[in-house]
Amino acid sequence: MADKARLSLNQITTNRWSVAEAADACARHGVRSIALWRHKIEEVGLEACVRAVRDAGLHVSSVCRGGMFPAPSAKERAERIEDNFRAVDEAAALGADSLVMVVGGCGEIELGDARKMVADGIAALVPYARERGVKVGLEPLHPMYAADRSVLVTIGQALELAKAYDPSGLGVILDTFHIWWDPQVENLIEQAAGRIYGFHVSDWLVPLPDVLMGRGMMGDGVIDNRKLRTLVEKAGYGGPIEVEIFNQLIWDSDPEAVLIQIIERFEKFV
Amino acid sequence: MADKARLSLNQITTNRWSVAEAADACARHGVRSIALWRHKIEEVGLEACVRAVRDAGLHVSSVCRGGMFPAPSAKERAERIEDNFRAVDEAAALGADSLVMVVGGCGEIELGDARKMVADGIAALVPYARERGVKVGLEPLHPMYAADRSVLVTIGQALELAKAYDPSGLGVILDTFHIWWDPQVENLIEQAAGRIYGFHVSDWLVPLPDVLMGRGMMGDGVIDNRKLRTLVEKAGYGGPIEVEIFNQLIWDSDPEAVLIQIIERFEKFV
Repeated sequence: MADKARLSLNQITTNRWSVAEAADACARHGVRSIALWRHKIEEVGLEACVRAVRDAGLHVSSVCRGGMFPAPSAKERAERIEDNFRAVDEAAALGADSLVMVVGGCGEIELGDARKMVADGIAALVPYARERGVKVGLEPLHPMYAADRSVLVTIGQALELAKAYDPSGLGVILDTFHIWWDPQVENLIEQAAGRIYGFHVSDWLVPLPDVLMGRGMMGDGVIDNRKLRTLVEKAGYGGPIEVEIFNQLIWDSDPEAVLIQIIERFEKFV
Repeated sequence: MADKARLSLNQITTNRWSVAEAADACARHGVRSIALWRHKIEEVGLEACVRAVRDAGLHVSSVCRGGMFPAPSAKERAERIEDNFRAVDEAAALGADSLVMVVGGCGEIELGDARKMVADGIAALVPYARERGVKVGLEPLHPMYAADRSVLVTIGQALELAKAYDPSGLGVILDTFHIWWDPQVENLIEQAAGRIYGFHVSDWLVPLPDVLMGRGMMGDGVIDNRKLRTLVEKAGYGGPIEVEIFNQLIWDSDPEAVLIQIIERFEKFV
């Protein structure tokens, strides 16, 4: 059983809450870590968020998200890298374990070119992040998001991209929703040892209700979160475990009830 | 540009047509090959289908589909293998290039166990198919179908499963919708040389309209079908190219108009 002390609320799961509301609820329910989203940070300002998590005694497991590097013009790509610098600044101010990268989809850009733009963006970002003490976490997304969200789709691809960098600066974020299907998942998690910056859990519902908004609460789908958690631990990761669920029904529910269920399901299925 | 002589109509794309209607339309439009589905064969009987394709002068590129091996009980698994034997018989009677395998999802079964059940099913099926001159084609499906349709999700995994068998009896079916996202796709197609039994095209729409019924017509999405066709040819495959599209809007359209569009798009984008 996973130690509840490792549970982190990824605030998108309780999307109706502001940063302060989510932080307060975590404190009341004994959840020690939280992951913040940039659009939520922007709602109230960075300083207010730093205060909110400090007042609640919380650790920030990650800031979501940097990335989105591929764009048709050099100007747009430069703007996106600049925006990633701002994300690094926010992660630094919050003392987050890492800045999560959702690298961007290919859209109208040729897939190989889009992947090169991602590599270029990472190359620009990592030194900036290192100077500010921020770890950059590459999150391979499920291949069904390759066109619109992330041309980075496997752990293997993330490790290939990361290997040119020091393991203390560029690593991977492993989310069970995105990686559970991979026939190589056991070997790849083992190979990721020393570069695992974060671990996310949720579940894969059958049938999948929606491509983006159809993730399930742990225990409601087919993912063996406990097995994957054990593999990640064997590879040396002992940090926070984020519960990150994109699901309209869950977002529409009472966030307090959702948090209570997260804790129950975390202890039962993770 | 792909030679129109290689175009094959996978009849699911014109789902409103019976086997005879689809075969007749192919003959009228100069399409030389067709792929038949078993539920369509069942509607009129195997003998009528054999006559229909023979009368239309068509080649049968594949029969869709065998597979669906994972099941909770040994009795169910044996029944499914028995059903696969019937699929082989149909493919043999139709002189099809191959029997396409959609191997089955994991559902309630542990993923590793489901994959073992697939390997066991294939082991039972290949000798039966070989005796009847039928090639068995493993089709890796997109990872978003791992739970409900196919625990076989990458070309690499299919080749790993196939390598214990003679390349003349067990190979792979490469469908651009299922494989386009794979960072290793070029290497893997090269490694598949000698085992490529079929090649399918369609497109990936952005945003994806539906997990199952959201495939697009070539040219309407982000897949570089021509590049993938070229890679498959370099690996030695020169056989029929099936257009296989699951899309409710296309299914609801006039099938004759769909076939005309398929030919245009095939010549323009494949």
